[in-house]
Amino acid sequence: MTTYNIAVITGDGIGKEVMPEGLKVVQAAAEKFGLSLNFHHFDWGGCDYYLEHNRMMPENWKDIVGDMDAIYFGAVGWPDTVPDHISLWGSILTFRREFDQYINMRPVRTFEGVKCALSTPKANEIDFIVVRENTEGEYSSIGGIMYEGTDREVVLQQSVFSRHGTDRVLKYAFETAMRREAKDLTVATKSNGMAISMPWWDSRAEAVAQDYPEISWTKQHIDILSARFVMNPERFDVVVASNLFGDILSDLGPACTGTIGLAPSANLNPERKFPSLFEPVHGSAPDIYGKNIANPIGMIWSGALMLSFLTQDSGAGASAHDAIVTAIEKTLKGATLTPDLGGEASTQTMGDAILANL
Amino acid sequence: MTTYNIAVITGDGIGKEVMPEGLKVVQAAAEKFGLSLNFHHFDWGGCDYYLEHNRMMPENWKDIVGDMDAIYFGAVGWPDTVPDHISLWGSILTFRREFDQYINMRPVRTFEGVKCALSTPKANEIDFIVVRENTEGEYSSIGGIMYEGTDREVVLQQSVFSRHGTDRVLKYAFETAMRREAKDLTVATKSNGMAISMPWWDSRAEAVAQDYPEISWTKQHIDILSARFVMNPERFDVVVASNLFGDILSDLGPACTGTIGLAPSANLNPERKFPSLFEPVHGSAPDIYGKNIANPIGMIWSGALMLSFLTQDSGAGASAHDAIVTAIEKTLKGATLTPDLGGEASTQTMGDAILANL
Ligand SMILES: CC(C)[C@H](C(=O)O)[C@@H](O)C(=O)O
Ligand SMILES: CC(C)[C@H](C(=O)O)[C@@H](O)C(=O)O
Repeated sequence: MTTYNIAVITGDGIGKEVMPEGLKVVQAAAEKFGLSLNFHHFDWGGCDYYLEHNRMMPENWKDIVGDMDAIYFGAVGWPDTVPDHISLWGSILTFRREFDQYINMRPVRTFEGVKCALSTPKANEIDFIVVRENTEGEYSSIGGIMYEGTDREVVLQQSVFSRHGTDRVLKYAFETAMRREAKDLTVATKSNGMAISMPWWDSRAEAVAQDYPEISWTKQHIDILSARFVMNPERFDVVVASNLFGDILSDLGPACTGTIGLAPSANLNPERKFPSLFEPVHGSAPDIYGKNIANPIGMIWSGALMLSFLTQDSGAGASAHDAIVTAIEKTLKGATLTPDLGGEASTQTMGDAILANL
Repeated sequence: MTTYNIAVITGDGIGKEVMPEGLKVVQAAAEKFGLSLNFHHFDWGGCDYYLEHNRMMPENWKDIVGDMDAIYFGAVGWPDTVPDHISLWGSILTFRREFDQYINMRPVRTFEGVKCALSTPKANEIDFIVVRENTEGEYSSIGGIMYEGTDREVVLQQSVFSRHGTDRVLKYAFETAMRREAKDLTVATKSNGMAISMPWWDSRAEAVAQDYPEISWTKQHIDILSARFVMNPERFDVVVASNLFGDILSDLGPACTGTIGLAPSANLNPERKFPSLFEPVHGSAPDIYGKNIANPIGMIWSGALMLSFLTQDSGAGASAHDAIVTAIEKTLKGATLTPDLGGEASTQTMGDAILANL
């Protein structure tokens, strides 16, 4: 029997509160379907570690987790003590890049029992996937400041898109659409404003689309696309976007379904050369940390995605995934709701209810 | 009596349909409050002109409209015939830059009679202003493609922020907040991802904020900020954002109120060295053009902003502005609604109703 080694990095804020719930549900589902998991807990990757060591991760972090099968990750960031661009670039963004997790897969859907934030007619039928480029694009640390500190200050920042990086995420998105019933793909763009990178991005979408004549697809500018997430969210099936646009759409989409507390994400290296990383979409949420009211579903659902991916999206892992999602559905339908969903359940109560429904 | 010279540029698609409605209401309001307007109509600035002349505007466009008091602008873009990055950069984006219209002011509010797209408790109380930087930032044509046409292709695009350009939009936003009751400002950022430009942008906000101790303000990352537009839109008062982020937020905000067909915008050169430009937020909307169903309110309300600005936001212009907005309120309350609002009124019917209510 294969034993999967999983690095557990809790990180900051509500990451510490939701992780135990994630672990208990994932562990139970694994046992139920005969998967053997070995969790390895690490206390680095968050701001506490930084305050002591002046870095987010140990120097040899790659040696430590490079051979793991996956990383189960809570949240990172504590702006009062460490500036975000330091904590994030020293932790989650480093994982994404150095482990070439070039796909950030973020399913968005409504659940019975959860009040959707929209009043539009079919808003309860939201069910789409955001496929986000996860390693390049607008997220760059290339550039600098000229005439620094003077009135003439000029700041340059490069967005960097490669054909290699763009084609592979587009292909992944078309493949994802091929496996779905609607076979529909929306390509986020802003070719009217970002006059170099985005017309080029569009042309790559056109090139890749040649191989997928079965897929109906459109390009949509990010401004109107964001508006349509609110006006007609039920129309979307698979949405592919650059790093920045995908970041925005994958917070906006879940907000439309009622809360971002539910949303999971899978940072994938599809070739499995490096470990993939699974984390909730929400961050460390300093505003609610310590109150024990964080919704653990984003963490738990991310764990389900991890189990599925570990077994190549089939077999025991896929069954464990489905069982967890069904347990989440039951729990929400049964009206166990954390405050972000209008209820009063604590983080543990929610975790326990899902465990019981498994 | 001062006569104000106004360049009228209708442009493409539904711009052609909504402009006549805008003109008739603006003209009537001006007469009512004793403002003398002289409209100058131009057939360039849209894609029809491009197809004939291979450019969007005549070479001497600056001489033609440089001395006007304002530009009243419909919409531009017709992607099937002219790529967006050519039509937009050759028209509206050129105006914004060359006439240094560095403020894009976009009010967002709900109206009685218009069904808000949100079901969250106080969504009917949306009333905020997006102040968007309008001349630099992420909208650039600086960069290029290396190894073009090969598998090794790499595309670079620079975002360019100057202290000059950033401080003035931040100041304008703080000043705008000072004139409002809530005195609250949200600064859009993405300093955790765009690791050079956005931490710097944050530091400029902190510097400018020193002069406005009365204003309560926060920085919010664009991803969660977009989510909050859906979850708690009533909380926002003034929101200031870079060019790209402002573009997204000013489509998303109106979508939350029920339709982007209502949303106006003022592209301002506050020093009045150059003409300012007033246009609806929506574009040329090829999907509904020719059906006579476009909502003219974005165009009409933009005209109201123009009248107010012409007289320095006071006197007859301000009264004319308020009268138009009141007429819009009455009309919507009276259930004259275009299809985007769930009604069946045509573009003209809506325009006529507002005129009658004036
Ligand atoms: C924390 C931040 C850098 C990150 C991102 O922008 O990618 C987060 O918002 C996310 O979506 O995973
Ligand atoms: C047409 C386009 C270039 C423009 C922009 O992105 O600025 C539009 O979306 C707007 O918001 O005025």
